[in-house]
Amino acid sequence: MSLKEEMKEKASQSKVAAVKMKNLSTAKKNRILETIATALEKKEEEIIKVNKKDLDLAKEKKISSAFIERMTLSKERIKSMVKGLRTVASLPDPVGGVMEEIIRYNGLRIKKVRVPLGVICIIYESRPNVTCDAAALCLKAGNAVLLRGGSQAFNSNLLLAKIMIEAALSEGMPQGGIQFIETTDREAIKELIRLDRFIDVIIPRGGEEMISNIKANATVPVISHGKGLCHTYVDKEANIEQASEICFNAKVQRPGVCNAMETLLVHKDIATDFLPQMVKRFEKEGVEVRGCIETQKLIPSIKIATDQDWETEYLSLILSIKIVDSLDTAIEHINQYGSFHSEAIISENKDRAEQFLSRVDAASVFWNASTRFSDGGEFGLGAEIGISTQKLHARGPMGLQELTSYKFIIYGNGQIKK
Amino acid sequence: MSLKEEMKEKASQSKVAAVKMKNLSTAKKNRILETIATALEKKEEEIIKVNKKDLDLAKEKKISSAFIERMTLSKERIKSMVKGLRTVASLPDPVGGVMEEIIRYNGLRIKKVRVPLGVICIIYESRPNVTCDAAALCLKAGNAVLLRGGSQAFNSNLLLAKIMIEAALSEGMPQGGIQFIETTDREAIKELIRLDRFIDVIIPRGGEEMISNIKANATVPVISHGKGLCHTYVDKEANIEQASEICFNAKVQRPGVCNAMETLLVHKDIATDFLPQMVKRFEKEGVEVRGCIETQKLIPSIKIATDQDWETEYLSLILSIKIVDSLDTAIEHINQYGSFHSEAIISENKDRAEQFLSRVDAASVFWNASTRFSDGGEFGLGAEIGISTQKLHARGPMGLQELTSYKFIIYGNGQIKK
Repeated sequence: MSLKEEMKEKASQSKVAAVKMKNLSTAKKNRILETIATALEKKEEEIIKVNKKDLDLAKEKKISSAFIERMTLSKERIKSMVKGLRTVASLPDPVGGVMEEIIRYNGLRIKKVRVPLGVICIIYESRPNVTCDAAALCLKAGNAVLLRGGSQAFNSNLLLAKIMIEAALSEGMPQGGIQFIETTDREAIKELIRLDRFIDVIIPRGGEEMISNIKANATVPVISHGKGLCHTYVDKEANIEQASEICFNAKVQRPGVCNAMETLLVHKDIATDFLPQMVKRFEKEGVEVRGCIETQKLIPSIKIATDQDWETEYLSLILSIKIVDSLDTAIEHINQYGSFHSEAIISENKDRAEQFLSRVDAASVFWNASTRFSDGGEFGLGAEIGISTQKLHARGPMGLQELTSYKFIIYGNGQIKK
Repeated sequence: MSLKEEMKEKASQSKVAAVKMKNLSTAKKNRILETIATALEKKEEEIIKVNKKDLDLAKEKKISSAFIERMTLSKERIKSMVKGLRTVASLPDPVGGVMEEIIRYNGLRIKKVRVPLGVICIIYESRPNVTCDAAALCLKAGNAVLLRGGSQAFNSNLLLAKIMIEAALSEGMPQGGIQFIETTDREAIKELIRLDRFIDVIIPRGGEEMISNIKANATVPVISHGKGLCHTYVDKEANIEQASEICFNAKVQRPGVCNAMETLLVHKDIATDFLPQMVKRFEKEGVEVRGCIETQKLIPSIKIATDQDWETEYLSLILSIKIVDSLDTAIEHINQYGSFHSEAIISENKDRAEQFLSRVDAASVFWNASTRFSDGGEFGLGAEIGISTQKLHARGPMGLQELTSYKFIIYGNGQIKK
């Protein structure tokens, strides 16, 4: 069978499975999740052993240490995956919920009911935990899922998928409800993203290049989990102590994630009081600070930031700083360079804050809080499959509800159109 | 300026306008809609004159009469467009609505607020009324809109757009809020659908080929208004008289539209009692009936339906009939050949109806009612921009709400992530 035929076959199996997945009861789905959790707990040692094989190969290939860190499965990480499965089991089932119900002039009763999306294909890169998280969320929302993990963690992903699928089938999951693409050939992605007859949505998680490639070539609708180039704007009416705490947290607490701060914007009227101390605090923590000319005038020791810096998601302990002469300039800068992810204003002035919150174009806008809270767990969704940086279907953290669609059910008693 | 640059410029102007459009007050938007309505009323004669030019050209080119019918603007049709504008003005404004609001464990208050999508590009074919309907809906939902009408009705669309834009600007619409693509060059579409930096969604309305071309090449997310291959299934426990009324209505009342019936499925146990009379009634109305072998055994005068028939959206007075041996077979047939649009079951048996409603994969599923009700107006949306046959973002009739996205606004008082 050619790769093309193989992908078509897999996707068509998912489509068949989706019809059965959508009718699984909540209790059944939860039992499947629990059975998977137990199976993973039992196979902990084997998982770590196989993961080590991937890690050794990656080290041989001189893969970056950040990447290797992300693909590592420790006892703790497996525990956290297992805990995630149980969390998803504890969340309310979105399927079947009545979103709206009306009775029309002619007696037709129209119900808008939540249904699964159908077949979801997740294409991801380094983190093997996505194999579990994504499968669990898709299953709980009544979908069939096709998993396509990156080549570096292939053996780890394959094993995790095998354990999950075996456990789920033993508990009565329909055949094909969870499937893993057992090839690292990149051509497989090209095939999958054009199978719109079978797949309802593609969720790519990974680097910008991968995502834009998929967007450019897919015929299946895509929900993209794009980059996070997040700003914090310290307004002239900010509480300086609060601003310092929030900015420090947004940059330093976990710099490698998408909701960390990359660029700090500071109003010129507060720059002298705020910035020198702030930069000192950052530098003490090992942050490399780059700034605009005005910032450098204030703190001559720092590097000059170039246009390139305003466009860069560092994902590390580097920060660019720009002094702006007004709230408008701050908003313009964010709308020009931001990635529509998470943006914050620190200000004691309600009017200025409201302007920022309304005019900044991003999935999540914060007033006097750290952008690090931009996360499904923190937003009360229980778990997340990603953070959407587009506006269609889902925006911001995506949980179970975002893995569903709806359907109109119309009850009549012989109505005909006049 | 090259076509590519021109499209980029237009789209970037829309993007700039979108920032202002989203802040227009409801009252202002309604005044703009009323001003447009009045302007169109005043220019009625000129519109009909220019439309006649398009019609004459189309006739010269031997365009099909169905197409010419759709592109014709009569006094009545202009009245109906104007009425549509006023209806949209009367509908509630979706922008700013709070969809959810929670306070988290750490005191963060999170509001999920409805916001416009941003820039919407509508690509349509024959009907000039789309120029008005689409612009009105996009404007009311706070979006900037880029209109790209088909070449046959170019002069009509251009005039309508000019009247609308002039009137809207005079009432204070931000420059670029409504734009019309003033070229019939098809290359323009290829450029537009890849401008994802500026355009938030493409809504194509037209033939299957155009839509699949756009889906295959767009980097901008697409909401497709696909074809409607709608079925009605007459169950063995149907009320025969009711079934006859509904089937007749679904096929005959307006055969050229997407929610009309194309294939009739009949349970074998009721076929002898139901079909001969039903077919007689259809044939009396000029419907050409094609059927499966079983149907032909019952009514030898009809043509045999081929596989091709099950896949065809006739949009005319042709009907294919298939006798099925069970509810399951009916559901399978629909899920194989349907277009996920609108499907109906006629049955007095609640359990069998519920099975159909749950297992058939379509945006709208009807029990004992005509599929012809699948329509934004009939569903209480007031107006519609199309009917989505995909599951992402919007499914079924799309109104104002479906032209919006949302944004999370988070109010804190110094919260940092632990």
